[in-house]
This record gives sequence, structure tokens and C-alpha cells, in this order.
Amino acid sequence: MLFGKACIFGGRARYCVVKPLACLFTTSSNMAKSKFEYVRNFETDDTCLRNCYIVVRLDGRNFHKFTEQHKFAKPNDNRALGLMSRSARSVMEELEDIVIAYGQSDEFSFVFKRTSTWFKRRASKLMTHVASQFSSSYVFYWKEFFGEDQPLLYPPSFDGRVVLYPSNRNLKDYLSWRQADCHVNNLYNTVFWTLVQKGGLTTAQAEERLKGTLAADKNEILFSEFNINYNTEPAVLKKGTTLIWEKRDETVTKRMKLPNAEEKEVAVTRSRRRVQAHHCDVIGEQFWEEHPDILEDDNC
Amino acid sequence: MLFGKACIFGGRARYCVVKPLACLFTTSSNMAKSKFEYVRNFETDDTCLRNCYIVVRLDGRNFHKFTEQHKFAKPNDNRALGLMSRSARSVMEELEDIVIAYGQSDEFSFVFKRTSTWFKRRASKLMTHVASQFSSSYVFYWKEFFGEDQPLLYPPSFDGRVVLYPSNRNLKDYLSWRQADCHVNNLYNTVFWTLVQKGGLTTAQAEERLKGTLAADKNEILFSEFNINYNTEPAVLKKGTTLIWEKRDETVTKRMKLPNAEEKEVAVTRSRRRVQAHHCDVIGEQFWEEHPDILEDDNC
Amino acid sequence: MLFGKACIFGGRARYCVVKPLACLFTTSSNMAKSKFEYVRNFETDDTCLRNCYIVVRLDGRNFHKFTEQHKFAKPNDNRALGLMSRSARSVMEELEDIVIAYGQSDEFSFVFKRTSTWFKRRASKLMTHVASQFSSSYVFYWKEFFGEDQPLLYPPSFDGRVVLYPSNRNLKDYLSWRQADCHVNNLYNTVFWTLVQKGGLTTAQAEERLKGTLAADKNEILFSEFNINYNTEPAVLKKGTTLIWEKRDETVTKRMKLPNAEEKEVAVTRSRRRVQAHHCDVIGEQFWEEHPDILEDDNC
Amino acid sequence: MLFGKACIFGGRARYCVVKPLACLFTTSSNMAKSKFEYVRNFETDDTCLRNCYIVVRLDGRNFHKFTEQHKFAKPNDNRALGLMSRSARSVMEELEDIVIAYGQSDEFSFVFKRTSTWFKRRASKLMTHVASQFSSSYVFYWKEFFGEDQPLLYPPSFDGRVVLYPSNRNLKDYLSWRQADCHVNNLYNTVFWTLVQKGGLTTAQAEERLKGTLAADKNEILFSEFNINYNTEPAVLKKGTTLIWEKRDETVTKRMKLPNAEEKEVAVTRSRRRVQAHHCDVIGEQFWEEHPDILEDDNC
Repeated sequence: MLFGKACIFGGRARYCVVKPLACLFTTSSNMAKSKFEYVRNFETDDTCLRNCYIVVRLDGRNFHKFTEQHKFAKPNDNRALGLMSRSARSVMEELEDIVIAYGQSDEFSFVFKRTSTWFKRRASKLMTHVASQFSSSYVFYWKEFFGEDQPLLYPPSFDGRVVLYPSNRNLKDYLSWRQADCHVNNLYNTVFWTLVQKGGLTTAQAEERLKGTLAADKNEILFSEFNINYNTEPAVLKKGTTLIWEKRDETVTKRMKLPNAEEKEVAVTRSRRRVQAHHCDVIGEQFWEEHPDILEDDNC
Repeated sequence: MLFGKACIFGGRARYCVVKPLACLFTTSSNMAKSKFEYVRNFETDDTCLRNCYIVVRLDGRNFHKFTEQHKFAKPNDNRALGLMSRSARSVMEELEDIVIAYGQSDEFSFVFKRTSTWFKRRASKLMTHVASQFSSSYVFYWKEFFGEDQPLLYPPSFDGRVVLYPSNRNLKDYLSWRQADCHVNNLYNTVFWTLVQKGGLTTAQAEERLKGTLAADKNEILFSEFNINYNTEPAVLKKGTTLIWEKRDETVTKRMKLPNAEEKEVAVTRSRRRVQAHHCDVIGEQFWEEHPDILEDDNC
Repeated sequence: MLFGKACIFGGRARYCVVKPLACLFTTSSNMAKSKFEYVRNFETDDTCLRNCYIVVRLDGRNFHKFTEQHKFAKPNDNRALGLMSRSARSVMEELEDIVIAYGQSDEFSFVFKRTSTWFKRRASKLMTHVASQFSSSYVFYWKEFFGEDQPLLYPPSFDGRVVLYPSNRNLKDYLSWRQADCHVNNLYNTVFWTLVQKGGLTTAQAEERLKGTLAADKNEILFSEFNINYNTEPAVLKKGTTLIWEKRDETVTKRMKLPNAEEKEVAVTRSRRRVQAHHCDVIGEQFWEEHPDILEDDNC
Repeated sequence: MLFGKACIFGGRARYCVVKPLACLFTTSSNMAKSKFEYVRNFETDDTCLRNCYIVVRLDGRNFHKFTEQHKFAKPNDNRALGLMSRSARSVMEELEDIVIAYGQSDEFSFVFKRTSTWFKRRASKLMTHVASQFSSSYVFYWKEFFGEDQPLLYPPSFDGRVVLYPSNRNLKDYLSWRQADCHVNNLYNTVFWTLVQKGGLTTAQAEERLKGTLAADKNEILFSEFNINYNTEPAVLKKGTTLIWEKRDETVTKRMKLPNAEEKEVAVTRSRRRVQAHHCDVIGEQFWEEHPDILEDDNC
């Protein structure tokens, strides 16, 4: 016999005599499991209200420290912005029913269509899956954007939340809010770092200088002191990144066998949808008029 | 007036003629932002009930396909199990207040102490942060476990959920449930793949053979046909992995300056807490008696 | 010391000997209270999502038994329907922001306008207040409808629920669902009780007779066997009761003092809003076109 | 065709010419109903977490005005307190699983046992039913307490909320909190109205006089100025009302037929549980030790 009398399962005594096969433990393991299964009933239902847009927004955790340690360029690091968009695209391609995503700085918002039944609209599943896919993609694609120069020092993290919007107006206002936030922050950061990097101010001095200034004042500083026209700054910085699905006709050449057993090259065209990035204004109506398929009608 | 007529507020066409500084758009960008800020009120409060253990469980998404494509050994891949534990450790080290974590197969559960006020107990923040940290760690540490032989082909993802348990009994039963699940699945998988790999059955034949068998029958097959005593299988497979905090005295040698400016090597001992892995039974009382500090009293 | 030893704080035995004034208990009662106040934090926020209609529906509890014991006429008791409407009116007059209510049989639904901020949109407050006001009104106005013949034998009760609807379409469909339910039930009950009361069938026979019949069959039975045209039945039974606010000009005669101290009777007209009952179709568009002010625009 | 053209389905104009029986509307009414039934899916699950005490607390709405209009005695009206308790008893007798209730002033709390599965633990059902039963009882029993002198002028209302408590300690602290609140308020009100009614102060003067006073000061005022020993005030005012279930042996005399056809009077004793009111301290342990069956063990 291979083992002693003390074949004890589970903290309770079960003394198996000859061979382990008949050990009470294993005999009753399914029984044991079913005894504990009542704990499943403690899960609560967190289904999102129907006919509402489901927005999942991710924000970088401790990204101030993270950007310092990974030597991000100030005020904006194009590699980092590219990696954010690449990760967001990965989320859109893996998860169903995301109709639009918007990102800026270290945040990204994903909008599920209002009639989505993905994951049975369970909020916890939706937001954890988005957070997980985004985070693993961020690490996976890091090298593609930062090359060998700047290795990733430790695994970063993002936290998320779910918000529901019942009407198209509410959803557009949400995206407008994030884009207005992008504008306000980017203008501030642009002036701040110009004052530091070109103007020779300390960060404390730059902060002091900008206290109480309006947008017009900041534009004036850039223009009159540094000859920078903020309006000609790259759109990706001023407007952030909007990802939507777009249909494209793709033509590929395929070799096909003809009935007479000959082969021939044939041009095959098919419509494919792919994620497309835009850096345009989403606050006004123009964007929505140009892409009427993103939103569903309110009256549904 | 300083600017051209086309400088229209509202996120639409802004072609400022003379200089951009006083453009109404930028002047009133904070105003614009505040106009949209009402959308914040659509966020709902998802604070977890006080005085309950908060469990976040992660499960691999489409891991059947993932394990195939990354050629995981059957029925268990030690590299993969090691990576799961490594990622879980990363979660415990980064997030506060996790007192115990339990994992098996492609799932891991994290238990926040019942009096935790981390993230103000907001369920969405807790679960997305866990999912994010775990996922980025999984990619980050992949090479440490799979080496150069098996590159990671694409970013994997995990989904999560939150469950609350009001009493120590409920929490222990939850962990027992997951460990009983580990046992049931591992016994099945062990016999199944032994029948296939050593017994020469097809997967369909193995499935047929095991239909309706009890644990005792499965033990019998392993023992009489393949001379395998299931009880001597590695504990990590039979019991899964339990991570807890343990205090250790660590002694390090430090060079210190003496008052007379001489230097001297001094042994400094301090108590450090670190995450320790166990592969033992958590269903019985022994584990809990040996680690009385994991759980807080019910009467609090 | 002024008081006896037995004057012990803590909510236990307090036998103060000389005079009670300085009893530790009372001295520190505010302190005692604050010690327990942490329990307030166990309340959870149940704010209803903004920009959604909030529907509270009440249903009679054990009304089958209640109607038997209070000898309600079959299939419909006009006194009971009147009392339901009277109680619903009381709810509308006492609670703010209810724009429409619909009732049939022993149920009543109340719709709060989508932009309501009443009770801070807290679901628990809204539904308990509706349930409470309705129930106390039901008892209060009982005698007005049932007179002295049929005293109320015991206090009845209603349970309630809250449902949110994000769009006008959803809300109209909700009301249509309840009205379609009214129609289906009333047609059935009308035929059933006609078969029993005029046809001499037992209730079991009537049930058997109606098994599997369609609406057309039921109409046919009423018409050919009992010469009853269902379409001419009272609208209150076929359509239920819809309560809305309506503005009326009211002219009252007031005595006013003139500057020369004379008095004169003056006709004063003012617009007053009052609850008005309708027994019409709410499934089609006509009702909504005639009352365009009930619903707010989706695009808000 | 049997019916006129105007017989159009869809909830719109239905002018059936020949006979109504085959009207499309009624034929397809079940179909119509099913078309709208999707709205049921907008209901959300509000199941209370298992293994927690469920507390429903009711508070009088606008009771300040209500007490004025119904001429309640100051500072306490015994008729009103009696009616509150009577209504609470009605709730306990009608609803299952309430193990203890506590009331003071115009509020009453009802505690469902932690393992209750009543109404599937749905929060909305539990709280609306409590609010409804309490409110209808309040009106129903009004005359029993206020007699003919003081008729009820209008239907009063109460609002409610649900709070969950995971441990016995939390639940006891909740009840202690309410009883401490009772004490603080009653002491204040007693002194306040004594100053007004016996001391001849205006309410404003009384308020000013009490500003900043501690419990000891208030006791002193009562004792030295009005010769009132607060400790001898009725317990119902100082401690509020606690309702619990108590088993009593009840002996009734029944006439029974003996085998020999004679009749005989027999004393039959059976155990009945009934609601019993207490006006004692629930903050200390004594009450709980004397009634060990109210609470279930934490370790369940």
C-alpha cells in the first residue's frame, strides 16, 4: 500500500484502507462541491438597463509616475498616444458591439451600441473584459511603439467604470465633455511645457504664470512670446483620437480553378469593415452627419 | 475686433483670420466643458456593502483556443500555472487589502478584507483594476515562464466579477467550492488525458469511457490500468494555489557610518511581509487554524 | 458624588440614587448615538438613471381573497374601480412630477417625468411613498365608494416595483402592454362570468369551455349566445383608466374692495391644473397627439 | 368579408360595421400584447445579498404638519404612539420573517431574519409591502386610538428604505442608534415643551434656552425648575417600542365528543406565537441575552 491510514480529505477524517481508489474523499468530491455551491447565489445581477448606450471608460493608474519612469516626452508623447490607440483598436476588434471609442491622454472610452446584448449586458463582464484586453494589449504592443530604447519596466494598470446614456444627445454630450477636457488640458500643458522648455521657467514659475489665465491668454502667450499658433498644433493632440468602424471595398487577386482545370487570376472585391482613427471635432454636428450609422435612433 | 467671422463657437469650423488668441472657441472652452459636465451625474454608485468580504474572480476568455494555439501541455501546463500565480502575486502586491487569493486552471479569485475601504469599496474600480493588473502582468511575465520557445501570439484577456460574502463561513465555503471544483476537474482531466496519451484512445473514446464514472472509478482506472496513484500527483494540480501574506524576518548587511567617521557593516533585521504560495487543503479547518490572521472576526 | 453606583452607562441598569441629573448615561447620550452612527454607511445609493421615465407599478396583494371577502361584483366591481382611481388621484396630487398614471383591475402604474429630480430620484423613496399614499387613500376613501353596506374588514396591501424606460417609445409600449393586458383579461372575464351567471355553467365548466378560444371566439359566444356586443361594453372596463393633468380655466366670483371703499363682485379667471380621467385607447398614436405635453422629447 | 373597412388593428380607430366578433383587433389582442412584452426586460433585479439582515425603516412624511392639524399632544401623544405600534403589529402579522421591529416618534424599523427568502429577498417588494401594510393599517385603526373626537382629515403617508446588515453586531448597533436617537430627541422635547407649557416661554425662547445644553443640563432644568425626574418618565417615551414574537401557552376549553357519544369539556393547551411589545433598553446585552432566539448565529 502506498499511503498511510491518514488519507484525510478536506480537514475531515477519512481513513482509506487498502487502495486509494475507494477513498471516501474522491467518491464524494462532487457531493462536496455541491454542498458549497450555494455561494453562487451571493452573486448579484448587474445587467445594464436596456436601450441605453453603455460607456466603459478606462483611466491609467498612477500614470504620472509611470510617464516619469518611462521618460515620456512632454507635454505629449506620440509613441504613448499611438500605443493607447493601438490597444483601443485591439479592444474594438475583440469585443462585439463597440460602435465608437474616444481617447486622449491616458484615458479611453468605449461605447457599446444601445441594443447590444453582448455578455447579456452584464456591467461587470463588459468592463473587466475591456480593462483586461486593453491592458494586455498595452504590454503586448509596447515594443512596437517604444522600440528597444525604452523597455517596459513593470506591468501598468488601468481602472474602469461603466456609465449608461439613454439618449443620443446624452451620448454626444459625454463625448463632447471628454473632447472639451482634452482641449482644456492640452492647451494648458502646451503652454506650461513651452514656458519651461523654451522659456526657461521652472515648473513652479510656469504654474504661477498660468494661474487664472483664460484660454485666450494662453493662446496669446504661445503666439506673442514663442511664435506658436496653437491652432496649427497636430489635431491628434487638440482633438484626441476617435475610433469608428468603416467599410472599405478591398480587392484581392485570387487564383481560381476554371472548369477546364486551368487556373486563372481573378480580382475579388469584398466589403470589409475595419477600425479607422479620426482626430476631428466630435462636439459639432458635422462628424455625426458624416457618419450617420454610428448611433441608433432614439425612438427605438 | 480681432478675429474673423468664421471663428464660430461650438466645436464647428474655426478659421480665425488675424490671430487665434481671442478665438471665442478657446476663450470659452472651459465654459463649453462645463456645459457638458452634467453627464457625470449618470454615473451610479456601486459601493460594496460594508463589513462583507469582497471577492473578485477572474476567468480566462476563450482559453480553450488560447491553450491550443500556445501548445499548452495536457492536462496541465506547469509554465502556464506558474504564470497565473506570478500574475496573481503582482495583483496582491499592487492592490491594497487583498488578504488571500486562490487560483486553479485559468481562474483566480482575490479576497479583499471585509473592512477594506480601498477605492471607497467601489465595485467597478476594484474589479477593473484587478483585471487590468492581472492581464498586463500575464503578458509582461510570459517570457519568464515560456521562454523563447513559445512566443505569445496575441494579447489574451480575462473577465471578472465581484461577489460579496457577509460571514467567514460564507467566504470559506466560497474558497472550498473553488477547490472542490479544482479537484473534480483535475481528476477528470488526468484520467482523460492518460487514456488518450498512454491508453491510445481518441478524445471521443476517452469521453465515452468516462461518462457516468464516479471519482472512485476514475481512481481505479488510473491505478489498475496505468499504475498511477492519483494521491501522489503534485499538490499544485490537486489543490490549486493559495496566496497569502506572510511575515518574515529578513536580515541584511548594511554599511553604516560610525560617529568617528569609520564605516562598519551592520546586520539589520526587519520584518517584511511577502506573498507566499501554498498548495494545501483550504476546505478543512487546519489551514485556517494555522493562519488565524487572514480572516477578521464575524462580530465586527 | 451626586449619584449612586448603579448609575452605569451603556444602556444597562441605571438606578440613580440621589438625583438623575448628572447620570452618566444621559450626559453621554449624544456620544452614545454617534458611536452607532456608522451604521448609516450601510445604506446604498439607489438613484434612478437620469433622463429615463420612472414607472412605479402597484399590485394588490392577495386580492383574490380580498374581493371574495368584500363581495366584489363579478367580473367587474365599479365601486372598486372607482376607489382605485380615487386613490391614484390622491397619489398624483400628493407627489410631484407624475405626468400620467394608468390602472386596471387591482393594479396602477405611475409615471414620473424623465427629468424629475423629486426625492433625488431615489428609487426606494419614490416607490414606498407611492405605495404608502395609495394604500392609506384606499382605506380613507373606502366608505365613499362602498358606503355603509360593505365595511372594510381589514387593511389591504399593495406591493410595488420601479422600472425605468429610456425612450418615449419604450414608455408608450409599457402603457400599451398594460392596456393590452386589460383587454385580454377583461374579455376573458366578461365571457367567463356571462357563461356562469347567465349561461348557468359552473366555474369549472366555463373554464373548460374557454380553453383554447381566441378573442374572436369569445366575441362570438357573447354575441350569438347572449346577444352581448363586447364593443359596447363600458370603456372603463375595456380600456382601463388613464389619469393625466389637464389645465382648466376656472372662473370664480370674488368680492373686492374698490378704492372708494365700496365693494363689488368681480369675476376672476385662473388656469388650474387638475387630474382628469380618460378611458380611451393609449396604444395608438391619437391619444399622444391629442396630449403632446405629457411626454418630453427624446432628444433631451 | 364580415366587417367594415374601418376595423383596423393597431389600437387605432376601430369602427366595425356588421358584427364585432371577428374584429381583427380582438383576434390579435394576445399578439398585440406579446409585441409589447419586451418592456418587462427593463425591470432590474434588486435581490438583497444573502445572509444579511434586511431592515426596512419607515418615516412619516410631513408629519410636523400632520401632528399640528390633528392636534397631537406635545411633546408626546399616547394615542399616536399606540396607533404606530398597532400598525407595526399589523405589518409583523401579515409579513413573514420579521423577527423584531423598533419604533419611536413617527418612525418604525422592521428587521427580516438574515436567512429569509420571502419575496425572493427582492428589496422593492419587501419595502413597498411594508410601507403599504403599515399605511393602510394606520388609517384603518385610527378611530380605535383617536375615537370620534379627532377624525382623520386626510390620508397620511410614510416613505421607506432598505438597509442590509451583515452581522449581529451591525444589527444591534443599528437598533441602538435608533434608540439613542429616541432618547436624545425625547429628552430635548420633554424639556422644550415643559419650558413652554409650564414655564411660560415662547417656543423661540425655549429653543434659545436649550441651545448648547448637554443632557445633564436638561435633566437639571427639569428637576430644579419643574420638579420633574426624567428617569421616572414612562419607558415608552424614553425607550421607544420594541416588538418581538413570543410563544405563549394558551389554554382553551373545548367541548369534545367522547366515544360513548357523550360530550365533555376538555382543556386544550397549545403554544401560540404572538407579537409582544417591550419598552426596554436594547443597547445593552441584557435584552439580547433574555431573548436569544431573535438573532441567528453569525457563523451561518
